[in-house]
Amino acid sequence: MNENSPYIYNKVTIVGVGLMGGSLGMALKDKGVAKEVMGWGRNEGRLAAARELGAIDRGTRDRGEALAGTDLLVFATPIGVTSRIAPEWFADAPPGCMITDMVSVKGTLVDDLTALAGPRRYYASSHPLCGSEDTGVGAARPDLFDGKLCLITPVPKTKKPAIGGVQSLWQALGMTVISMAPTRHDQVVAAVSHFPLLLASALINQIGDEKLLKFSGTGLLDTTRIAGSSPVMWAEIITANKKAVLGQLDGMMETLMLVKQHVKSGDPARIKGWLQRASRRRRKM
Amino acid sequence: MNENSPYIYNKVTIVGVGLMGGSLGMALKDKGVAKEVMGWGRNEGRLAAARELGAIDRGTRDRGEALAGTDLLVFATPIGVTSRIAPEWFADAPPGCMITDMVSVKGTLVDDLTALAGPRRYYASSHPLCGSEDTGVGAARPDLFDGKLCLITPVPKTKKPAIGGVQSLWQALGMTVISMAPTRHDQVVAAVSHFPLLLASALINQIGDEKLLKFSGTGLLDTTRIAGSSPVMWAEIITANKKAVLGQLDGMMETLMLVKQHVKSGDPARIKGWLQRASRRRRKM
Repeated sequence: MNENSPYIYNKVTIVGVGLMGGSLGMALKDKGVAKEVMGWGRNEGRLAAARELGAIDRGTRDRGEALAGTDLLVFATPIGVTSRIAPEWFADAPPGCMITDMVSVKGTLVDDLTALAGPRRYYASSHPLCGSEDTGVGAARPDLFDGKLCLITPVPKTKKPAIGGVQSLWQALGMTVISMAPTRHDQVVAAVSHFPLLLASALINQIGDEKLLKFSGTGLLDTTRIAGSSPVMWAEIITANKKAVLGQLDGMMETLMLVKQHVKSGDPARIKGWLQRASRRRRKM
Repeated sequence: MNENSPYIYNKVTIVGVGLMGGSLGMALKDKGVAKEVMGWGRNEGRLAAARELGAIDRGTRDRGEALAGTDLLVFATPIGVTSRIAPEWFADAPPGCMITDMVSVKGTLVDDLTALAGPRRYYASSHPLCGSEDTGVGAARPDLFDGKLCLITPVPKTKKPAIGGVQSLWQALGMTVISMAPTRHDQVVAAVSHFPLLLASALINQIGDEKLLKFSGTGLLDTTRIAGSSPVMWAEIITANKKAVLGQLDGMMETLMLVKQHVKSGDPARIKGWLQRASRRRRKM
């Protein structure tokens, strides 16, 4: 970080230039947060596409080149990839470097990466709550983060300057930052994101006869929209957040048992009270 | 019906002038299907509003006045009201009159009303698959039926001319008409409409901590949109379609048990295959 420059960061290195990494690069340049954005990826063609779309200034497949002189390193890779490659990236990151990730399930990742950071690097974990049903840098947008929430998930060993640095990064991109423990984070996203995706998929799969789908109105279309998202990505997320997702599944089975009793009673007043609670809450959202 | 007139019907009487009845009146006049639209309701103020919005030409609280010279009588009332008032309306309807309803759960209604029609009136039941989260004539729109599906649900005793007449009514309003037995109808709408509403409400109610709702993205907003609809109306619909809704509830509990096994296995490939099936189907919709 250079106080004589209008930029917060001289060089930002983004690991993985897909929807999230590409949007981050665009936003950093758009808001004048980074002087240079370097993208790292395994595929030359995709790096070239990211360059052409203005998501990165330079692209490389070489870790050393990616990290030279970097003052902010961001992992925009999926959960599994991030845990696997983190040790070598942390080892090679310049001393004093700020590091974050954008992984959507935290599990033990934050503890693991905090240990890797050691005394000379500043790591705090983050999860910007935004995205798209589309994937890849072609779907990237500089305004993806604007006005959205970002969760940061420190652990007791997270350094204060790392929290401050990562917080100001996302705030500079127009986000509201909220801090919570990794375990709480995983429960929250299971409830508002991972489990709803699972339930929407269950609803689609339950309509056994595909011919029935033509009778669906906008209600069913809305209710099942997220079920059209990337199954590969979601299978990884749900598996990684297994514990919290199983908690939601058990909760839903209990809820449906209760609803069954309401419906079985044949008394509209019982189901009406329950629907009213949902309706009031939905209108507040 | 008068062959010397450009209209299909000289006088149409709509019982209940809310969202559906009001939209029907507007559409009948918009497409030149009816020369005169008469609205019946219990509330003078609402009838006046319907007249001002152009949903009806005349409004009355008097059944005799409503029925005088009518050649098409349409019940746009909720299920319970329709069953309760049908006997006196059928008794007073002019001989030769065509009659239909727009009730969204059929149960034994079609058999009951077919018996009331006797030999001199032509009754066939219908259910236009369209609507709105808003209620009342203020939300009525002349294009509500355009390009949508209408299910007609004849029973063995339904007269052929009644089927033909009701079919051409909805076709004249731009709808595609599909015929099925009442029991099948109730199963279909339970699967694509009533149960999805119940599931969206369950998802909202399960998120016990209202503070969590602020973390919800567009996914949860879409998935739960229908849960904001009228609890009174839906409590009646779900109770009336109890048997088919309970079938869906049992099916969902089985589906969730299966999903639980997939998630519990910790093998992303198992949940991926299941998500892929949902994703493929959703994209077809």
